[in-house]
Amino acid sequence: MDILSIISAKREGLRLSREQIHHAVQGFTAGRIPDYQMSALLMAICLRGMDLRETVDLTEALVASGRKLDLSDVPGPKVDKHSTGGVGDKTTLVAAPIAAAAGVTVAKLSGRGLGHTGGTLDKLESVPGLRTILSPAAIVEQAGRIGLVVAGQSGEMVPADKKLYALRDVTGTVASIPLIAASVVSKKVAGGPDGVVLDVKAGSGAFMKTLDAARELAVCLVEVARGLGLKATALVSDMDQPLGRAVGNALEVAEAVDVLSGTGPDDVRELSIALAARMLAMAGEAGIEAAKRRATEVLDDGAARKKLAEMIEAQGGDAQAATEPDGFLPRAKFLSEVTSPSGGVVAAIEAEAVGCAARELGAGRMRAGDAVDPAAGITLERKVGQTVEKGEALAVLHTSREETLENAARLVEAAYSIQPEAPTGRPLLLDVIE
Amino acid sequence: MDILSIISAKREGLRLSREQIHHAVQGFTAGRIPDYQMSALLMAICLRGMDLRETVDLTEALVASGRKLDLSDVPGPKVDKHSTGGVGDKTTLVAAPIAAAAGVTVAKLSGRGLGHTGGTLDKLESVPGLRTILSPAAIVEQAGRIGLVVAGQSGEMVPADKKLYALRDVTGTVASIPLIAASVVSKKVAGGPDGVVLDVKAGSGAFMKTLDAARELAVCLVEVARGLGLKATALVSDMDQPLGRAVGNALEVAEAVDVLSGTGPDDVRELSIALAARMLAMAGEAGIEAAKRRATEVLDDGAARKKLAEMIEAQGGDAQAATEPDGFLPRAKFLSEVTSPSGGVVAAIEAEAVGCAARELGAGRMRAGDAVDPAAGITLERKVGQTVEKGEALAVLHTSREETLENAARLVEAAYSIQPEAPTGRPLLLDVIE
Repeated sequence: MDILSIISAKREGLRLSREQIHHAVQGFTAGRIPDYQMSALLMAICLRGMDLRETVDLTEALVASGRKLDLSDVPGPKVDKHSTGGVGDKTTLVAAPIAAAAGVTVAKLSGRGLGHTGGTLDKLESVPGLRTILSPAAIVEQAGRIGLVVAGQSGEMVPADKKLYALRDVTGTVASIPLIAASVVSKKVAGGPDGVVLDVKAGSGAFMKTLDAARELAVCLVEVARGLGLKATALVSDMDQPLGRAVGNALEVAEAVDVLSGTGPDDVRELSIALAARMLAMAGEAGIEAAKRRATEVLDDGAARKKLAEMIEAQGGDAQAATEPDGFLPRAKFLSEVTSPSGGVVAAIEAEAVGCAARELGAGRMRAGDAVDPAAGITLERKVGQTVEKGEALAVLHTSREETLENAARLVEAAYSIQPEAPTGRPLLLDVIE
Repeated sequence: MDILSIISAKREGLRLSREQIHHAVQGFTAGRIPDYQMSALLMAICLRGMDLRETVDLTEALVASGRKLDLSDVPGPKVDKHSTGGVGDKTTLVAAPIAAAAGVTVAKLSGRGLGHTGGTLDKLESVPGLRTILSPAAIVEQAGRIGLVVAGQSGEMVPADKKLYALRDVTGTVASIPLIAASVVSKKVAGGPDGVVLDVKAGSGAFMKTLDAARELAVCLVEVARGLGLKATALVSDMDQPLGRAVGNALEVAEAVDVLSGTGPDDVRELSIALAARMLAMAGEAGIEAAKRRATEVLDDGAARKKLAEMIEAQGGDAQAATEPDGFLPRAKFLSEVTSPSGGVVAAIEAEAVGCAARELGAGRMRAGDAVDPAAGITLERKVGQTVEKGEALAVLHTSREETLENAARLVEAAYSIQPEAPTGRPLLLDVIE
């Protein structure tokens, strides 16, 4: 078996065998297969596709390249949650505490975003003192003790995925559903849960711009996860406008705490309950409606907020961040309002443009390794469907770098579409792949 | 303009602009664009294709990467000849002397084969003393003085093609008609002729296995050459069985001399006359029938053989190699007959298998830079349509490495298909693209 025949087979549109896929992944990870051959194979996969069996084999090969987290000593059901990424998506900080408060262990290995704002790790690290770099033993211990832990993935897990993703990023080979699915599912499998609930975003602020594309990815993710022995359910949710009002690391933690305190935006609450309910239903006997009632219960009685506080404390942060976030989270030095140039109804908010503005303000990174400003970001004062008078605030910008305000304000103003009439909105929850 | 957007555009099936193509080629040649990005782009081109305009732009960018041979001081018409490569194809050594003897200047820049036997340069170098590494000034001088020169391409010509081809070779991206056409035509343009006659091979011993594929390549080659301002005609010729009887470097020179002496195999004579006639017709006023008569005339009256002798002498070889090749060409130490396991009619001779056997015997190279054995090769004692008794010779193997005989014999025996009935053959000349 040689890599050239594997590349040629995929170029001709043939299915690769399990042996061929493992040979390519192992050789590439070990450095025997050079980047230039792997990138040719990746482009052939982008254009010729991979069927389910090939994608499962690829995922398995990625997992096999590193270590897995062993949660077998943690009693009870373990369920993970994953979002394909959107602007203002802080549902992990709500749904995971709900699930944990209701008795499902959530040991989530998360990443740092290369997107508009940081990833879940960056968001959590805006809580002063909170550590996300934990040893496997510490992750397992905390999972067993309080049922909730969110930590960074160690370099020893799925190294093949890291190397492959870095190559895809610079060779125009990111946009492939089988490659995306293998990357996502390999990381989930390595985290050792019984199952995973996936939140696939669709819309202008998501990687998948259309509902059809998002649905296709969701189906692939669920099938591949099951092919690797994981339970899986996917929600397809709207990302045409940012989720909630807060975009930025500390701002999003504060909003998550608001939701856990019963005061946050409805959309974040609705999607978090939907995700948590799927996690509960996956873990136990309860049907989805009973799970939804149970999720709402532990959210409304404060148990979920208490669980988040326990996790923050366990990871070195001050638990009061989960009760009085305003006093315990960093605040930006410069705040600036973006006002509406006209009166009317907000017809749309381009999520991607808002994300770009947040990154401009310091909330995200341009390159891996860049630091993020935990306090930077945007709070949206108007969401789709709300009315605004000319000169009233559309959003507030937060940054420690004053010079970024002008450009960010331009981006945010352009992101808003103000119309005379209210738009016909689409629901937040677009589909469920069970 | 950045390479990632160029890769993505081609991945999506878009046409690349002239600027995008030049940016990619220049950046790659200068080392600013790494191999792994170029190989992704090459695979996208393999699978998405390139239209004529893109292919012409690519060819132009390859030519622009290096120097061109300036033949403008050489009076009269200058016509080049190119074959896409087959087993036993020694027509350059016949057609070019015919054309030169009839008054057309042929200054051919040739390559070393990575195939089953050497390229034209390797074949010529089997003549003791003959040099193929000539300075541009020496090439122009010889072209002006005797009208015939065959030399190696200098490293300063089309360096982008050399670098690109080396990458294609190891990334499964050779099989692309636009990429093949750009590579071939760029080298022809750099050689500075007025026009080129192409011999596109079709069959088991050729890169293009089917007539349709060969015809498609021939049309593309002609259109791209014309797009670069070159006159162009292509013949499509059969390569289902080896051409002539000799396969191997010195053996093929000897057979070419036989043809120039009126005693060689009919198929080599027929194709060489057809190619030379196209070269004459391209150079002058004469129609193709008059050109064929003229080509036959200078072949039959010995003028073409005399021209080859002049060229051999001009390049440092002994001119007697063109009159008494047996005494002036190296001979192999070990000769061994392959006999027929059954009686019947030769229905087919797998050209590729014969080529592999010749390489095994030392006539070709496995890696660039390997030396070839000038005396090694195969002489076919039976061609398609001829009868053979059980135990009679099918072929004779020539080598200086006795240990290769057994495996080569097995390959050659398996290459022959012996049937009770004569096959319905296909003509040597399959099509002409004018």
